[in-house]
Amino acid sequence: MKLIRKLMPLNDAQKIVFERLSNYLIKNNKIKKVGIIGALNRISAEDIKSPIDLPYFNKAAMDGYAVKAEDTFGASETNPIILNLVDGDEIFPGEAKKVFTGEELPKNTDAVVMKEFCNEVDDFVEIYKSVHPNENVSRIGEDVKKGEVILKKGDVINPYHLNMLASLGIKEVKVYNLSFGIIATGDELISLNEIKNIEKDIKKIKGKIINSNSYMLYGLVKNLGFNAKIYGIIEDDKEKLKKAIKTALNENDILLITGGTSVSERDITVETVKEIGDVLVHGVNIRPGKPFGFGMVNGKPVFMLSGYPVASAVQFELFIQRFFVKRKKIILPLKRNIASELGRVDFVRVRVDKEVEPIRITGSGVISSLIKGDGYILIPENVEGYEKGEFVDVYLTKIISSG
Amino acid sequence: MKLIRKLMPLNDAQKIVFERLSNYLIKNNKIKKVGIIGALNRISAEDIKSPIDLPYFNKAAMDGYAVKAEDTFGASETNPIILNLVDGDEIFPGEAKKVFTGEELPKNTDAVVMKEFCNEVDDFVEIYKSVHPNENVSRIGEDVKKGEVILKKGDVINPYHLNMLASLGIKEVKVYNLSFGIIATGDELISLNEIKNIEKDIKKIKGKIINSNSYMLYGLVKNLGFNAKIYGIIEDDKEKLKKAIKTALNENDILLITGGTSVSERDITVETVKEIGDVLVHGVNIRPGKPFGFGMVNGKPVFMLSGYPVASAVQFELFIQRFFVKRKKIILPLKRNIASELGRVDFVRVRVDKEVEPIRITGSGVISSLIKGDGYILIPENVEGYEKGEFVDVYLTKIISSG
Repeated sequence: MKLIRKLMPLNDAQKIVFERLSNYLIKNNKIKKVGIIGALNRISAEDIKSPIDLPYFNKAAMDGYAVKAEDTFGASETNPIILNLVDGDEIFPGEAKKVFTGEELPKNTDAVVMKEFCNEVDDFVEIYKSVHPNENVSRIGEDVKKGEVILKKGDVINPYHLNMLASLGIKEVKVYNLSFGIIATGDELISLNEIKNIEKDIKKIKGKIINSNSYMLYGLVKNLGFNAKIYGIIEDDKEKLKKAIKTALNENDILLITGGTSVSERDITVETVKEIGDVLVHGVNIRPGKPFGFGMVNGKPVFMLSGYPVASAVQFELFIQRFFVKRKKIILPLKRNIASELGRVDFVRVRVDKEVEPIRITGSGVISSLIKGDGYILIPENVEGYEKGEFVDVYLTKIISSG
Repeated sequence: MKLIRKLMPLNDAQKIVFERLSNYLIKNNKIKKVGIIGALNRISAEDIKSPIDLPYFNKAAMDGYAVKAEDTFGASETNPIILNLVDGDEIFPGEAKKVFTGEELPKNTDAVVMKEFCNEVDDFVEIYKSVHPNENVSRIGEDVKKGEVILKKGDVINPYHLNMLASLGIKEVKVYNLSFGIIATGDELISLNEIKNIEKDIKKIKGKIINSNSYMLYGLVKNLGFNAKIYGIIEDDKEKLKKAIKTALNENDILLITGGTSVSERDITVETVKEIGDVLVHGVNIRPGKPFGFGMVNGKPVFMLSGYPVASAVQFELFIQRFFVKRKKIILPLKRNIASELGRVDFVRVRVDKEVEPIRITGSGVISSLIKGDGYILIPENVEGYEKGEFVDVYLTKIISSG
């Protein structure tokens, strides 16, 4: 009988997986230079420093008149100060220049008087309000200083980054470039393509379940900015599985296998990988997601994920997602007690608003609990649970609320 | 002189915009049926109800022996109960059937005894632990009940939805299908393509700024699951702008124009749209983002957004993003006071952890404030500000933390 003899602590398992992933990325230089538009939602593989100050010149923040602030001191509605209107790149004491929002300030000016407080008469302008230095001015480097890091390695490039990159004249970014193969195993699986009318079909396919994990994993990989290719369902047959693994590894950098990772006689995934490569992790002390496996075949990482949807989603989160990107964390009080078991890390899906509400779950097959979650908390090995009102770290997985 | 005579309250402006958008979507049936893989990150245009119970059969949640629970009552380590081992789709009192995780339970069984508590001897099995009804069973409809709504109109379809849809045999989803044209206007703009070496170029292009909003808007549109096409920079010339608007509207459903929406003499966007269509909104009492305009040209919605990056991002969020999707909201206490002005809605970018920290900003051109934000709060018109410690609603914009 096959056994997961000893469950590995989560931290140890992550360490092994993350080291192998790091080495794989470094050795194989899995980085690609793409135009900024193509970089949207991909993971930056470099720290990018600003090549210039932004703005790179002192800029009028309002329509009005550029002045040396001290020339306006004392101006008021009843006692305007009169300045000569000039044009050009430089002004001298007693002069002002008309400027539009966004326009560069001429030399020797340090403020803009809003046009609402000015009155242009022939070739001079009456100033009815004094300004202090830098008033209504966007100063050089106010947004970003030259040399400042504006994008970090590991950042997911969002639309605001595109704005920043373009503003700084940066046309290309290095991003991580990986392709994932996805295999589902299990004699109990049937393909979505075989379904014609689900209500009728369930009478015929009784006991079978539709391969749904491949689609989820495809989405999770895509949302990390990587390529994903689904290889369909492989039955519980070692030779067929070996062949599929080799094909998928030839065509991709990383392989995800879902199903067959537990310890029943039918669970052949880990045994099969062992026969053609090295299994470095099998069985992790987490819930859900215990029957996780990780190995290397032909120098490429192979993830062995549960067949249960929730377990495989949790394994993807803890061993893949968290390697590439850091989740935003918030801290909120718990709405009710949560129990856990010493020695095990519990992954608890939660909803958040003013408090953290654990989602009551009944099994690791319950897909709806994934959809309902706004994030998750991790209860560490050395904690037996949390009490109502305790503040806990929540890792966010959702910024969009359901309609 | 052109004036935004009266600023419209945010709610009124949103009402006008959202009604026009709704009508446009309905009239033009901007909906497309796509395979579930193609539906990833797109907005569902329909409520989808589950066609079946999930699971659609009672399923073993563990490897072990399917039994009628009452047949095991009283079993213990010292006093096992012995049941006859049978095969087939049905059992009778005093019988048990070996089952693997995920397998359908035979008729007349309602529980599974984990194999760890059983001992198979010839054609019977010793049961060392009693089980209660439903123990180690995933029951019919436990995950989803037939008829339950599993995807709502307006939901952004995520990888977990894909899992659910596939599990239910649903192959296609109706999603909103729109294309956005993006025009930037302003004589002060130059194209990113013209930049060769930014450090040298800023000496030559002094006073000009790179068109960066088009890239941001492209990303924001794409992240709503829509198509986006950038039409480059149009100078401040009404005829050229009209031509560009017409071209972009011929090729797209919705037009975004960035720049030229304020009241300076150079701001010709709103005037130009007025000459070829209707302007329904110009000037909204929000900060930042006041010079927002909205109109209809040839029956299509035209958004006139500020040239300032932050203002245009805020306008996109309030008038486009929020029409299509609802942001996840959390409630946290403020880390410090925020002042606002009566009559105006303030859009305040914030960071969140255990508290909400407003990001100190100095201008609506400060792109870095967009990148730093985890979300935002809206201070309503009738509120003069919030005090430290007050609980406020935060709309999340980020689930990934910066590396």
